[in-house]
Amino acid sequence: MRTMLEEIKDHLGKKIQVRGWVHRIRELGKISFVLLRDVSGIAQLVVDAGSRSEEVAQTASQLTLESVLSVRGTVAKNEKAPGGFEVQVSDIEVVAKAEPDLPLAVNQDPDKVSLDAILDYRMISLRNPKILSVFRLQSAILKLFAEHLRGEGYTEIKTSKLIGTGTEGGTGLFAVDYFDTKVFLAQSPQFYKQAMVSSGLERVFEVGCAYRAEKHETPRHLNEYVSLDVETAWIDSEQDLMDLEVRILKSIFEGLQRENAGELELWKATVPSAEEVEKTPRVSHDEAKETISSRGGKKVYEINPEGERILCDWALKEHGVEAVFIYGWPRKKRPFYTYPLDNRSTMSFDLLFRGLEVTTGGRRINEYPMLLASIDLFGLDPVSLNDYIQIFKYGCPPHGGFAIGLERLTQKILGLANVKEASLFPRDRRRIRP
Amino acid sequence: MRTMLEEIKDHLGKKIQVRGWVHRIRELGKISFVLLRDVSGIAQLVVDAGSRSEEVAQTASQLTLESVLSVRGTVAKNEKAPGGFEVQVSDIEVVAKAEPDLPLAVNQDPDKVSLDAILDYRMISLRNPKILSVFRLQSAILKLFAEHLRGEGYTEIKTSKLIGTGTEGGTGLFAVDYFDTKVFLAQSPQFYKQAMVSSGLERVFEVGCAYRAEKHETPRHLNEYVSLDVETAWIDSEQDLMDLEVRILKSIFEGLQRENAGELELWKATVPSAEEVEKTPRVSHDEAKETISSRGGKKVYEINPEGERILCDWALKEHGVEAVFIYGWPRKKRPFYTYPLDNRSTMSFDLLFRGLEVTTGGRRINEYPMLLASIDLFGLDPVSLNDYIQIFKYGCPPHGGFAIGLERLTQKILGLANVKEASLFPRDRRRIRP
Repeated sequence: MRTMLEEIKDHLGKKIQVRGWVHRIRELGKISFVLLRDVSGIAQLVVDAGSRSEEVAQTASQLTLESVLSVRGTVAKNEKAPGGFEVQVSDIEVVAKAEPDLPLAVNQDPDKVSLDAILDYRMISLRNPKILSVFRLQSAILKLFAEHLRGEGYTEIKTSKLIGTGTEGGTGLFAVDYFDTKVFLAQSPQFYKQAMVSSGLERVFEVGCAYRAEKHETPRHLNEYVSLDVETAWIDSEQDLMDLEVRILKSIFEGLQRENAGELELWKATVPSAEEVEKTPRVSHDEAKETISSRGGKKVYEINPEGERILCDWALKEHGVEAVFIYGWPRKKRPFYTYPLDNRSTMSFDLLFRGLEVTTGGRRINEYPMLLASIDLFGLDPVSLNDYIQIFKYGCPPHGGFAIGLERLTQKILGLANVKEASLFPRDRRRIRP
Repeated sequence: MRTMLEEIKDHLGKKIQVRGWVHRIRELGKISFVLLRDVSGIAQLVVDAGSRSEEVAQTASQLTLESVLSVRGTVAKNEKAPGGFEVQVSDIEVVAKAEPDLPLAVNQDPDKVSLDAILDYRMISLRNPKILSVFRLQSAILKLFAEHLRGEGYTEIKTSKLIGTGTEGGTGLFAVDYFDTKVFLAQSPQFYKQAMVSSGLERVFEVGCAYRAEKHETPRHLNEYVSLDVETAWIDSEQDLMDLEVRILKSIFEGLQRENAGELELWKATVPSAEEVEKTPRVSHDEAKETISSRGGKKVYEINPEGERILCDWALKEHGVEAVFIYGWPRKKRPFYTYPLDNRSTMSFDLLFRGLEVTTGGRRINEYPMLLASIDLFGLDPVSLNDYIQIFKYGCPPHGGFAIGLERLTQKILGLANVKEASLFPRDRRRIRP
């Protein structure tokens, strides 16, 4: 039976079998020290050519980095070994030999490798424990997000990503050749999650891909990302949605602190405490611009990335948390379906976290006449929106929702320089492989 | 505070507020009986025009089906009301009025409506409690699948659905205009989940969309579906994978029996017990053909849909479960990456459930020289597979996996006639809306 490497300490003096990848090799005279890596951790193997069979010594001397081994041996204490224990090898089987021309060193600090190299050789760079830890943490975020919402009575939905027309007017869409016609990759499940609230489920969430055909080349943009979508009935305003997001983030951050301390430690990262998340200030769009103007030393008319960083600095200084909700966005900056507060502003919000927008949301128009008027005001074609309009023509309760970008949240939790580091196989304007 | 409709019985004699959609209206002299529907259930409202204000009586007389109401009233016993209790209304607010020209009747038995009408008016037909129940059950499958695998140490991954080349030779792919080039929608996360096993995660799962540009027009095909993907290291053969799928299905079926009895009841459906799932027979591809030939009364050379039904009938009769694993598929029927057992057959399997293939899987080739030989044997271009090949060039453990079609599994659990009924917004050759 296989022993996982993190558990060898429980088998002192016993003969065990371990399996994994060759992480590092060091020769010291007749003795080979091999670090073996499995899903649970890294442990040291020792092969003493003097005391072992010719065959084992021969195999050990020809090992290559990243080869996959199945090893038998006896656990011994060694203070110099990682974790304080090692396996004194009696038998080695090379299950899969790695060629010696590794395109990048798996066992080095990824900070020393260019992002392009890391992404070009993604199949190999993901083996680096620090790089891989990003996705262990991401898996936990997925779990904690869904668990929290199921606990509040939400139903998980899966909606189509192939749509006939864009939800926000048709710009920024990738076209797909669909038999004899063209369809588009969905920018968000917006219309579908609203339909599902009004189907009677009332509270829904979806985890799915979203696509933006935008030519951005920035450390904060991806052309394909995972959207954590929430939509809920019977809200009064976007304030209820901010309350909900605070509860979700508390669950995620507490869960990560509890279960992913190792991943946070690798990146020297911390997450806000529950108390800190609750103190997240809520400022209106106008107040936000004033704060940015006064702290930035010049009048601003738009909240740009620099302004987002200034606001988060302000929130940290004044409220003890690097996050801020901005509500009351201008109507012209929001899609037609956003519920207007007055002629100028809307019941919508963003969440900035550590200098980056990670969430956009708001109350949606649920009243049929108001929706028709908004479609007209925005100059959109009601015929192309006919399926969507039916949701409201036949009775839809007040509702709203938001979407959290999974990769951006991961990026900001771990302090990654580029959002692409938080996507397993990122897609940008130039990158369509691996 | 709002009381959910399933809980009105706990408030006998109390004044409560309820909210929901108008499901049915019946007038009896001066008394209106309204069935109100919310996410929790259906309850009866009674408006007695004789004893209420003119305004309430007026509102009640003008109600339309599917309008959204917020209602105050007092809970009373009434044996004739659904659940034995009703709300005697003192105040009605029409939160969102529904137009009276509903395209289909939400409150009728969906068996009486054509599938085309149900799908054409999906935004409205989903309000039918029986239709909606399909997706409550599907949400539970998603939860139970993920919970089971996390319990066995699996990490959830999210991989790109935009790929440069096809995983199985380039047929059946939808092309996407991606800036100045073409990419394709992924048929499966096959290559990526293998990469993630070999990244060191060893055990991974993914829930994501998969695309097949096939012109099928059958009750068992969708062009876009949700694939429940699993991949795991250190298996010996496809038998280990069948063991894993049995464990997963036991968790799903037990969970549905425990938590979704209502949805199963609505469809008069049952799921196999844990004992039955464990008895699922495993037959080789040759044995399967023999059984079909002997029971069908004519020699078969291929296992077609009719043969799949015959086999499941056989399994029910001989083993007490409507499911059967077929292993040892011929090499020419499986993709190049399937681990060969010998020159003729492979370490691969299908699971048939209630007459339909719901899973395909197998051990994959993990040995670099064997993979290169297989790429050559299948006449594929190793250059186009270069990223994939790197996984194996640099050490990959024995592994395999499978994919369960979420909609097919849902279809077969509930006994739906067409797989499209198990997709919220299904896509087929002609259907790209809503």
